[in-house]
Amino acid sequence: MTYCIGLNLDEGIVFASDSRTNAGVDDVRRAGKMRVFGREGERVIVTLSAGNLSVTQNALNLLEHRALHDPRRPGLENAKSMFEVAQHVGDAMREIRTRDDAYLRDGNIEPGASFIVGGQIQGEAARLFLVYSEGNFIETSPDTPYFQAGEIKFGKPILDRVITSKTTLDEACKCALVSFDSTMRSNVSVGPPLDLFVYRRSSLLLGKRYRLEEEDAYLRQVREQWNDTLRRGVEALPKPDWLV
Amino acid sequence: MTYCIGLNLDEGIVFASDSRTNAGVDDVRRAGKMRVFGREGERVIVTLSAGNLSVTQNALNLLEHRALHDPRRPGLENAKSMFEVAQHVGDAMREIRTRDDAYLRDGNIEPGASFIVGGQIQGEAARLFLVYSEGNFIETSPDTPYFQAGEIKFGKPILDRVITSKTTLDEACKCALVSFDSTMRSNVSVGPPLDLFVYRRSSLLLGKRYRLEEEDAYLRQVREQWNDTLRRGVEALPKPDWLV
Repeated sequence: MTYCIGLNLDEGIVFASDSRTNAGVDDVRRAGKMRVFGREGERVIVTLSAGNLSVTQNALNLLEHRALHDPRRPGLENAKSMFEVAQHVGDAMREIRTRDDAYLRDGNIEPGASFIVGGQIQGEAARLFLVYSEGNFIETSPDTPYFQAGEIKFGKPILDRVITSKTTLDEACKCALVSFDSTMRSNVSVGPPLDLFVYRRSSLLLGKRYRLEEEDAYLRQVREQWNDTLRRGVEALPKPDWLV
Repeated sequence: MTYCIGLNLDEGIVFASDSRTNAGVDDVRRAGKMRVFGREGERVIVTLSAGNLSVTQNALNLLEHRALHDPRRPGLENAKSMFEVAQHVGDAMREIRTRDDAYLRDGNIEPGASFIVGGQIQGEAARLFLVYSEGNFIETSPDTPYFQAGEIKFGKPILDRVITSKTTLDEACKCALVSFDSTMRSNVSVGPPLDLFVYRRSSLLLGKRYRLEEEDAYLRQVREQWNDTLRRGVEALPKPDWLV
């Protein structure tokens, strides 16, 4: 399993993903789920992937392969909008699944996968999409400014409480790390290092990518302080006196 | 869906469950998931149920029916241990599923269900079991003092952080309500009123059952204070200065 978050805020977009992958409990590895494409000043495209790793990797490999060997073919490098980008990602996943699904199902392997795809192409606003396993997709709106993929439930309550379009990038990063912390504590299939990409709206900069290893001082500080906050928070609740 | 928690602590057992049930989004009703059986001073048995409501209700109906009409037959009223009680619950569920499964699956209805069953019978310790959909079951241990059933993921992180065998009944109730709050915020299929039963070890008392309606003053206080704790907790985390 895996866990990914994309938060589309007034200030920009925060992308976060874990790096654990497993094909059974005896085959746990590291594999980043974040890919960054683009040309600074022109386009910044970030993908986060969840689900079957061969499906998501090869959907992106296919897009990269074609961009390299057939650069005039429509793809991420020449798409005119993020809408087109989401279409390309969905189409590439459909192509890989058309090739592989029957073989995977034959081996009782789940071919499901999904992508969070976002960023900005010069000339339009920053946008964020969730591409479903079937290749169709939806976009964030002010009512629903974020998407999750993968092991989403453990870390959803804190996002629901804190995140709105007005949340700053700083606050959103903190909230995303807390959401990952809750998930990692309760599910061994999600684990560090965490990848974080902070895209400031209209900057068209590619450089704001960070990898937080398990022993990262900031990550550890957040995790410890959050644990204290929750434990003390429960202690501080009023006693249920009616309980006797 | 539903959400249930059973916490087996040194001081006793806390049982909590919601009251929402739905057969599709256009058929949402109230149905308590908690049942209390026993005779004060001799046996206290509490069941919490999740999953297909007809399966869980009728498994318990079957046990009640037999206790009434064939009182010498082994059942909850004369079981010598909580282990036997868990067996009876599992057997009753298997019997109902043997009768109904094929018909339910024929209508694409999931017959899965599970029970948290706990309490105390005079002569042995208080015990807590999780009865799976297949009728087999497991018991808590000092390493794993709690069970959840139903929509378990949203409210699991707080239990993992706070609950150990040493947690007091008071603290456990607060933590259970927080766990319900997180679940209810993120999933509409879980909702109040909440049923709470606090069993103090070796008391063999049946009376400690409470129903917290949505507008209950204590529940509201816990929910509001907890929301503040989390929002302020995120604010208080160190800023990710390295982000710029």
